Amino acid sequence: MTDRRVAVIGLGSMGYGLAQSCHRAGLVTYGFDTVAERVARFLAEGGAAGPLYEVAGTLDAVAVVVVNAAQAEAVLFGPDALVDHLKPGAVVLGCTTVSPDFARTMEKSCAARGVHYLDAPLSGGAAKAATGALTVMAAGRPEAFTAAAPILEAAAGEVFRLGDAAGAGSAMKSINQMLAGIHIAAMAEAMTFGITQGVAPERFLEVISKCAGSSWMLENRAPHVIEGDYTPRSSVTIWPKDLGIVLDIARDAGFEAPLTATALRRYEAAVDLGLGPEDDAAVAKVYARQAGVDLPRFGQ
Amino acid sequence: MTDRRVAVIGLGSMGYGLAQSCHRAGLVTYGFDTVAERVARFLAEGGAAGPLYEVAGTLDAVAVVVVNAAQAEAVLFGPDALVDHLKPGAVVLGCTTVSPDFARTMEKSCAARGVHYLDAPLSGGAAKAATGALTVMAAGRPEAFTAAAPILEAAAGEVFRLGDAAGAGSAMKSINQMLAGIHIAAMAEAMTFGITQGVAPERFLEVISKCAGSSWMLENRAPHVIEGDYTPRSSVTIWPKDLGIVLDIARDAGFEAPLTATALRRYEAAVDLGLGPEDDAAVAKVYARQAGVDLPRFGQ
Repeated sequence: MTDRRVAVIGLGSMGYGLAQSCHRAGLVTYGFDTVAERVARFLAEGGAAGPLYEVAGTLDAVAVVVVNAAQAEAVLFGPDALVDHLKPGAVVLGCTTVSPDFARTMEKSCAARGVHYLDAPLSGGAAKAATGALTVMAAGRPEAFTAAAPILEAAAGEVFRLGDAAGAGSAMKSINQMLAGIHIAAMAEAMTFGITQGVAPERFLEVISKCAGSSWMLENRAPHVIEGDYTPRSSVTIWPKDLGIVLDIARDAGFEAPLTATALRRYEAAVDLGLGPEDDAAVAKVYARQAGVDLPRFGQ
Repeated sequence: MTDRRVAVIGLGSMGYGLAQSCHRAGLVTYGFDTVAERVARFLAEGGAAGPLYEVAGTLDAVAVVVVNAAQAEAVLFGPDALVDHLKPGAVVLGCTTVSPDFARTMEKSCAARGVHYLDAPLSGGAAKAATGALTVMAAGRPEAFTAAAPILEAAAGEVFRLGDAAGAGSAMKSINQMLAGIHIAAMAEAMTFGITQGVAPERFLEVISKCAGSSWMLENRAPHVIEGDYTPRSSVTIWPKDLGIVLDIARDAGFEAPLTATALRRYEAAVDLGLGPEDDAAVAKVYARQAGVDLPRFGQ
């Protein structure tokens, strides 16, 4: 046990697992979310109890794992700004997928209040979050890394230290999301194309996963389609958001990203079909519907 | 040693390695190509000597590893058709990337002359061809597999047996090419985007290869860009051809493949820039030129 005190803001699939990992590592861990059931569940699992603004001044580190930049900014610097309640030398870990510019702004705004900021987006999904095996793409001043160490040690299997200033972590995360988003849609395009050619989805996975056409996402998501199980491990709605961020950054850099833009349109089409809350592998349904072929059904 | 006699038609990067593997396995191996230097080199390495049409009647198996369906058809059934010179019970291995329909036609035409046909496209690249570690996506009658066994044992690390009739091998190969072609272009898009965000290409590879954005092609091709070495292991020109085949098959099936079509346009843009003969990782130059950023140079 330790007397280190941390909080996780945002108990979605990544944040909840991160909070569990901190608690398991012996940190006094508070969990906050606008969804009361998530907070109650974490308390029942041993999370520390107390109102955010009353405990804020006692915290050594706060991980912000909310949905987007607007939420992160609202939590940290909105009305009743959390940063104003933190003690000097505390650290904020910015784990949301945001633009490098946004991360740099957060670092500057935190510094003006004597608080460290670590640009610390996450990769690995809910399963790795729950087992303390996340990959963290981190950038920030050495003091920010030092202050964030208890959370990083508790929650990360690998920490890439990408630079001494915020921005580099978010840049790498946006690159990873660009590829991950393209690869899931490519898996869906190829598997559904295979069905039109008489190739069974399970045969597709068996063969392609051992060939040059394989990807991390193909091996991870193709089983969801094969099992017909669209329980959201990571939902379709993530992708219009994350690929939108990527394309915003690209546009500001004068960079054309046609594969990213094409993949984005497929996820938008999935949302239009009402598939937003489903697992992101459900983008395969966009292809199947267009081509008039059937995907495997759950339980068959 | 054995008295099995085989020939390889087409001594490009895949065919040459396949011929080497057959020779090394003790098969009497003839190699033929329109480029005399390739034939001479294989003879110098121990290949068997003799004119194609004189030795054809003595061959047990012929692997056709030419560039496209038109070349394969010309060799097998054009003027002075090779199939007419083969002995009954010999087998043709069709290793070229072709449509499933074309493979079925070849099987039928060979059968009419008493010759077996194995639909046997290859995956793995020149390096695996040279070491006898190719992946073969094979389909055909059991007698075709039996007759092809000496070549498969000599050249393949893995043989996927995908069905009892030609077509299923070519279908799986087209799926693999679809994904491989998208993934190389996606690697180029993401790495070049990263450069606009200050992410060095070698850092990109180091981090992303351990994250959810990785792919077989990313790990294989990104080093070519990082080293600035565009010596063609597999050239840009392969992709307009192979993705064109994939899109033809898709069109016949009424299947829309927007990522494939987008990737194809990037390779076409690379050919338009005169990059056709370079390694396919040179598609990154299309992105770099558009965005006005520099890629690593050879020897730096």
